[in-house]
Amino acid sequence: MEAIDQADVIPGRAELAAAMERLAGKVRRTPTLDLPAGDLSPVPVTLKLEMLQHTGSFKARGALNAVLTAPAGTRSICAASGGNHGAAVAWAAARAGLPAHVFVPATVPAAKAALIEGYGATLHRIDGFYADALAASHAHAQEHGAHHVDAYDAPAVVAGQSTLGQELTEQIEPGRPVLVGCGGGGLFSGVSLALEGRNPVVAVEPAAAPTLTRTLEAGQVVDVDVSGVAVDSLGARRAGDIAAAVAQRLGSTTLLVPDEAIIQTQLYLWSNLRLAVEPGGATALAAVLSGESLGRHPVVVLSGANGPALR
Amino acid sequence: MEAIDQADVIPGRAELAAAMERLAGKVRRTPTLDLPAGDLSPVPVTLKLEMLQHTGSFKARGALNAVLTAPAGTRSICAASGGNHGAAVAWAAARAGLPAHVFVPATVPAAKAALIEGYGATLHRIDGFYADALAASHAHAQEHGAHHVDAYDAPAVVAGQSTLGQELTEQIEPGRPVLVGCGGGGLFSGVSLALEGRNPVVAVEPAAAPTLTRTLEAGQVVDVDVSGVAVDSLGARRAGDIAAAVAQRLGSTTLLVPDEAIIQTQLYLWSNLRLAVEPGGATALAAVLSGESLGRHPVVVLSGANGPALR
Repeated sequence: MEAIDQADVIPGRAELAAAMERLAGKVRRTPTLDLPAGDLSPVPVTLKLEMLQHTGSFKARGALNAVLTAPAGTRSICAASGGNHGAAVAWAAARAGLPAHVFVPATVPAAKAALIEGYGATLHRIDGFYADALAASHAHAQEHGAHHVDAYDAPAVVAGQSTLGQELTEQIEPGRPVLVGCGGGGLFSGVSLALEGRNPVVAVEPAAAPTLTRTLEAGQVVDVDVSGVAVDSLGARRAGDIAAAVAQRLGSTTLLVPDEAIIQTQLYLWSNLRLAVEPGGATALAAVLSGESLGRHPVVVLSGANGPALR
Repeated sequence: MEAIDQADVIPGRAELAAAMERLAGKVRRTPTLDLPAGDLSPVPVTLKLEMLQHTGSFKARGALNAVLTAPAGTRSICAASGGNHGAAVAWAAARAGLPAHVFVPATVPAAKAALIEGYGATLHRIDGFYADALAASHAHAQEHGAHHVDAYDAPAVVAGQSTLGQELTEQIEPGRPVLVGCGGGGLFSGVSLALEGRNPVVAVEPAAAPTLTRTLEAGQVVDVDVSGVAVDSLGARRAGDIAAAVAQRLGSTTLLVPDEAIIQTQLYLWSNLRLAVEPGGATALAAVLSGESLGRHPVVVLSGANGPALR
């Protein structure tokens, strides 16, 4: 799979450690909840409550690390996003005292648009899909000299997301599988790198947005049709080069879950735990509740709760 | 204050320890979230995320302990409740394989009524206030031989609630003040007893339902007018004899917060942490966000999330 073997873009141990130090006290160390067999599921499960993070998703980690490592002299930030990354970049830029421009598909959920503007960023609604918003952000960066923060395929972003995995090394035992929802693969990459050699990390994707799965099948990064209930957060049409390279290096596995299972998981999380998790945030747990056999006691990241939470 | 000095009803150390052992693995050990100064509030604060408990509130602890220690031969359970205790008793009885009858004021929120019936209990709507529902539950117990589980003024219930405080001994440092919302005082009593000599526990009440505050002022348990946004969960008109005796023994303090502060705290919890906490569950935090000076780094119990969560 030479096409996706780009080990030179994968952040190294030093970058991960630096991100952990840089973000200490600035992002929230989110707690875990241990549930015994027969509580939430027939098997015991540990939930990482990452929807408690600043901006309502793990994206705050990568965005803040990227903003804090922007080139000297950076005077503004721009980004393209389905919503959560945009909110995170808006928050991170505001923390750093920089203006931000966020480009989103016109189909962005209202709650996410309000969140982005609530943090003071200028919101640009772009006709089309994420790829169109991405092109607009790149054009803005070129024209205005803004620093573009990629949603998932940048070493600083992946290093930021790795802090979630680094926290897990103090919260869970070695060997237990860790399930994360996967879109472009930023969270998957960061957590996989943080836990390399300690815990296997499984990328769970909506069956309607099987981006990393198809990439691994093809042996190279390919365009994938995406749709479904989690498309606003896990609807990247192309996996990141970093995600593909990490998955190849680690021999990672992916799982696909149908939209119905994601919706049922959202309802179940509300009725059992009073957690209003968004579809993308519930996707990893949907795999467990669907009865996927994962060997040992799984750990599941609940990664976001920016509406529409319940349908 | 002889009138409320009823030390013979206060559960002792052995009862608290037995409850901890009895409920291990049956109630959830809810996690804490540490937030530094400048995050949720100007002072650092630790939140105990008890809305993640079974049935959506701490009430599951006391209800299950009471059901599991019911007299031999008990064939059914009954209770009166503003909603959360009823749901907890319905859940606990179902776990024990016993039928349950729950008596609620006719003004019970729809979400709580649905929850009680969802656990399989028979719901009885009683015209009037909690006191009327309580009389109906007592009458039912007498007529049908059911075991009545009081919402807050029974040693088994207080011992059950103490397990939340016993968990805190492994989660927080000695000396830090612990704030709990207070209605009839079951949670306040249990947590106070668990943390006696280790952490001061402060009872936070809605200004519109100052039950324990007025009782301590009067030096005896008195009837108090109650109203306001948290009345369905913190609207007991009389403090428990246990709560009054515990507060007297420990020299406890209370704080009052206005309804506006409670509503603002709910909105703030949603916008900052994606937690949909009910008014009674947010009351303790409202004291911190209102700027109450508490000395050292406070610990706040978010005690419930059974709607209406946001108004």
